[in-house]
Amino acid sequence: MELIFLGTGAGVPSKERNVSAIALSLLQEQNSIWLFDCGEATQHQILHTSLKPRKINKIFITHMHGDHIYGLPGFLSSRSFQGGDTPLTIYGPKGLKQYVETSLALSETHLAYAISFVEVTDQMVIEAGQFQVFVQLLEHGIPCFGYRVVEKDKPGELLVNKLKDRGIEPGPIYQEIKENDHVTIPHIGTIYRKDVLGEPNRGKIISLIGDTRFSKDHIRLAQNADILIHEATFGKDKQNLAHRYFHSTTLEAAQLASESNCKHLILTHISSRYQQEANEQLLQEAREIFPNTELANDFSRFTIT
Amino acid sequence: MELIFLGTGAGVPSKERNVSAIALSLLQEQNSIWLFDCGEATQHQILHTSLKPRKINKIFITHMHGDHIYGLPGFLSSRSFQGGDTPLTIYGPKGLKQYVETSLALSETHLAYAISFVEVTDQMVIEAGQFQVFVQLLEHGIPCFGYRVVEKDKPGELLVNKLKDRGIEPGPIYQEIKENDHVTIPHIGTIYRKDVLGEPNRGKIISLIGDTRFSKDHIRLAQNADILIHEATFGKDKQNLAHRYFHSTTLEAAQLASESNCKHLILTHISSRYQQEANEQLLQEAREIFPNTELANDFSRFTIT
Ligand SMILES: [Zn+2]
Ligand SMILES: [Zn+2]
Repeated sequence: MELIFLGTGAGVPSKERNVSAIALSLLQEQNSIWLFDCGEATQHQILHTSLKPRKINKIFITHMHGDHIYGLPGFLSSRSFQGGDTPLTIYGPKGLKQYVETSLALSETHLAYAISFVEVTDQMVIEAGQFQVFVQLLEHGIPCFGYRVVEKDKPGELLVNKLKDRGIEPGPIYQEIKENDHVTIPHIGTIYRKDVLGEPNRGKIISLIGDTRFSKDHIRLAQNADILIHEATFGKDKQNLAHRYFHSTTLEAAQLASESNCKHLILTHISSRYQQEANEQLLQEAREIFPNTELANDFSRFTIT
Repeated sequence: MELIFLGTGAGVPSKERNVSAIALSLLQEQNSIWLFDCGEATQHQILHTSLKPRKINKIFITHMHGDHIYGLPGFLSSRSFQGGDTPLTIYGPKGLKQYVETSLALSETHLAYAISFVEVTDQMVIEAGQFQVFVQLLEHGIPCFGYRVVEKDKPGELLVNKLKDRGIEPGPIYQEIKENDHVTIPHIGTIYRKDVLGEPNRGKIISLIGDTRFSKDHIRLAQNADILIHEATFGKDKQNLAHRYFHSTTLEAAQLASESNCKHLILTHISSRYQQEANEQLLQEAREIFPNTELANDFSRFTIT
């Protein structure tokens, strides 16, 4: 699993930061890529990465503000133009389907693949192969949703010593034992998988908390996350401004990471009022509360191990 | 008058060429800028120029294909966000108003200025201060319009010798003579402006022929233009392809410039199949027929004198 930040700015694009989009590469896990938000020129950003649009099979939209959706029609068209022909599912708030369908219809765009729309609601759970995605309503003036991506636990490794103790030597039988609840072997007996497997490998948790005011309610989304991605539109001295415009500060993001027992925090959605020189300051504000913090720039990549 | 090409590619953005947009700067003539087409990320391209979005007061859209309109909602939002509060008029085909209004409404975007929409039709004439814009339907499968921008002739200079012959010495009276049909001067008599002005300065003509098949009907749009901007999606060996997809070749663009007695031809809307190395070849194909040809790249500027 790898996160690729395609746009880390807020509201309007700047020369330094494009508007919101984050790719979650699950190429190793399930040969696909998920996209979270799709601000204008997300497809342009993708041109500067190795990401293949046709590999993107799920798009999750946090909310309907333009800086999070205006890149969708162009991305969808180009995905088709560039040979994408596999279905795609778009998750997002009410209105998203109408926006996409109107844009495509009026521009006479005919895609070579089918799109399914799923209207998300508070507390919805989305099943997606070895992942579950939990949805929670945030506080942003208009409906805005956070997403908690939970990888299911993976079965532990075969305990080779235990098998050898029972007289089972390595060979194709090991695979059979791993894939079945129980296997009966002549002269040896019935082997139950649960008896010969080690501890399950805990699946990873990635929490994405988009545009929102700080709230302790969001601990549910962030609890024990391996990576918490949290918006940090403002520095810590702008808490009133953040509250008024339904956004968060660096400090608030760090506070949530800390109270939610997260492993890492990544700040994004940085206001265009902050130039590159301010990055270090913003980062330090969060690290005072939660040391394991990074600040995303466009094209920042984070591998989740 | 100056032309600034913001996007010179066709269909999809590439690393070399963004999708369509051309700015016509009339800052000296009337302190405004006009925009022709607004593909996705036009506002991003503008960030790399000195153009001020709030100075753009007219947008002309040739047709509804996504590569010509998907940048509109983002441009309009950012124009407002960046302090633009003066009205803006958008000219374009049926459907454009619905596209823009749906995008803005669903994204809850509230602009600080008013937008007027003018639905263009074949042979419409748009009056715009010292300019007239003639509209003509092209051949592109869906309704696509070419625009011919004609600057009105400017009155000639005062013929100082003629005035001196009549005994009128330079002074504020010269301005008065220039601004009135006739002026009566004691002891000298009545001076009619038409008798003391030189030849009028012919206004400039810029013709913009967007996505279309070649047709001699377009001579009406291009006739005697100082600058003809013509799409050239394909090289001369792809005439069948151009015809099938309702586009033109380098050679066809040059042929129209030649038959229309234009002064300059600028090729744009170049297919992403052509890399930078092909530019010289495409240009030479047109120059064989019409030597005074240029090929636009993103951020190419042309001053019209
Ligand atoms: Zn935002
Ligand atoms: Zn086009």
